[in-house]
Amino acid sequence: MDNYICLDIGGTNIRAALFMNDEIQPIKQLKISAQAEGQKAEDRILDLIKDIWPQKGVVKAIAAAAPGYVDSEKGIIIKAVNIPGWEYMLLQQFIQDKFNVPVLIGNDARLAILGEWKYGAGRGHHEIIYLTISTGIGGGVIINDQVLMGSSGMATKLGHTTILPDGPLCNCGKTGHLEALSSGSAIARYVLDQIKNGTKSSLNLAPLPTSKEIAEAALQGDDLRMTAYKRAGYYLGIAIANYIQIFNPTCIILGGGVSLTGELLLNPTKRTLEQVILSKEYLKDLIITTAELGDNAGLIGALVLIKIHHL
Amino acid sequence: MDNYICLDIGGTNIRAALFMNDEIQPIKQLKISAQAEGQKAEDRILDLIKDIWPQKGVVKAIAAAAPGYVDSEKGIIIKAVNIPGWEYMLLQQFIQDKFNVPVLIGNDARLAILGEWKYGAGRGHHEIIYLTISTGIGGGVIINDQVLMGSSGMATKLGHTTILPDGPLCNCGKTGHLEALSSGSAIARYVLDQIKNGTKSSLNLAPLPTSKEIAEAALQGDDLRMTAYKRAGYYLGIAIANYIQIFNPTCIILGGGVSLTGELLLNPTKRTLEQVILSKEYLKDLIITTAELGDNAGLIGALVLIKIHHL
Repeated sequence: MDNYICLDIGGTNIRAALFMNDEIQPIKQLKISAQAEGQKAEDRILDLIKDIWPQKGVVKAIAAAAPGYVDSEKGIIIKAVNIPGWEYMLLQQFIQDKFNVPVLIGNDARLAILGEWKYGAGRGHHEIIYLTISTGIGGGVIINDQVLMGSSGMATKLGHTTILPDGPLCNCGKTGHLEALSSGSAIARYVLDQIKNGTKSSLNLAPLPTSKEIAEAALQGDDLRMTAYKRAGYYLGIAIANYIQIFNPTCIILGGGVSLTGELLLNPTKRTLEQVILSKEYLKDLIITTAELGDNAGLIGALVLIKIHHL
Repeated sequence: MDNYICLDIGGTNIRAALFMNDEIQPIKQLKISAQAEGQKAEDRILDLIKDIWPQKGVVKAIAAAAPGYVDSEKGIIIKAVNIPGWEYMLLQQFIQDKFNVPVLIGNDARLAILGEWKYGAGRGHHEIIYLTISTGIGGGVIINDQVLMGSSGMATKLGHTTILPDGPLCNCGKTGHLEALSSGSAIARYVLDQIKNGTKSSLNLAPLPTSKEIAEAALQGDDLRMTAYKRAGYYLGIAIANYIQIFNPTCIILGGGVSLTGELLLNPTKRTLEQVILSKEYLKDLIITTAELGDNAGLIGALVLIKIHHL
């Protein structure tokens, strides 16, 4: 019996899944919060791996989806803004030293696209753009059945292209990025700024609302929140048009919590896309769809990574 | 003796080169204007091919670099804005019918990058971004030693990504594209608009100055024109940062007439790039250089296209 342990490391939660043989349904899953007083994230990860370790059979490999800049070749997390202290973090080595099995790491969005392409919404497509829209915006691209990595594995930072120079501050510290305009945190921030500036809304400022709460209010007809999603969709439409003209794909997959709000975001996105796209030719054979693997895309992508490496 | 005829079709001029055996120096070159009263561009091309046809030996193949949307597979120019009447133009078939030799066509910027990669500034690199900045802005990308084509050959429209929503009108009819901000025509238009609005300059409005004349004036210290190049460089820097974060290349090649103005455009471009790039890691192993093949990149790229197809 061959076992594989896959991790999905986020700024909020760390999840682990145990896969067996050729199954893509995990036989066990665990979730812990990423941050706890007096314990580093990397030590919490070790505990999590111990907890999910199978009682029977061999663990052939461990793979982890991690946020931020990940150098897959060297097994280093160059920088993960959402995890305190993770700069040039030698995660691969760190886990390998403790458990003595092969360890692979990859950027979370890039592993998610790998999962969606093999087992999810991208099956059968050869050119895919994947955008995961939640607190931040991550991206991945498949070209000719291969994940676009770039010369040092840092390609497809699709949430951090500048769409509006001198636009709002991004989570990364720069300005005007797609993430600063169309992510969950961007939507929430826009609503708060407008209320502070005197716009009426059914929303309370304390405690701060999440983008999900804003979505719910918008669906009930709150004007400000409708505007907030329209605005996010407008910039998302511009960004997607840019990416379509750059990659000319046949499939765009939208994942992440914010994309689950459905038409609220998707309608203004598609409307803008149709207005700004250079030629209708780009849209002829293109489908825009939502991710199928949901929260598990990163975990399943990590499993695909293991399989690709024949571990 | 094997001969190859290569064409570079532009909105202003059409050029032809005759290559022999494995040489990359053409043994003969001709240039005609693209437009003439009472004769269509495609008929002028036939005449040009006749004129350059060699007296000795066999013509093994003809390849043409064409502007706009080119479907290389089908040999169709879907649309070339700068050439009147060229919509769904069956150029490959049209030339093949007359001369009875294999004909290949490709987008000009994409053939130029092929030329620069094999014989020019991109030699030895595996991930390259090429931007040709003249009246318009064209682009090409090499990933893992392959030209990025997209699912139907329409990828890398790098001059037509939106950099400034609601920005100036682009030659393509949309707004806020890189071409509308940083191309030669964008620089010229900006200067004219400012003068019309009362900004002082050593420039006359009639006849309209070219971007080259503007560059010369700027080098002599004309404030307005300095500003115009700074502005163009600023947006070019933002676009290049976006493309670097998308492709993570080791080499950026700038071609086209406007890039020949050198530091005037390049200094503000690099300054902006360094300010806005997500991480200095992207710039560590990156060179930014100018094209080596100059005007011949498209012609030599067309020759590379023939060789790739083993014709």
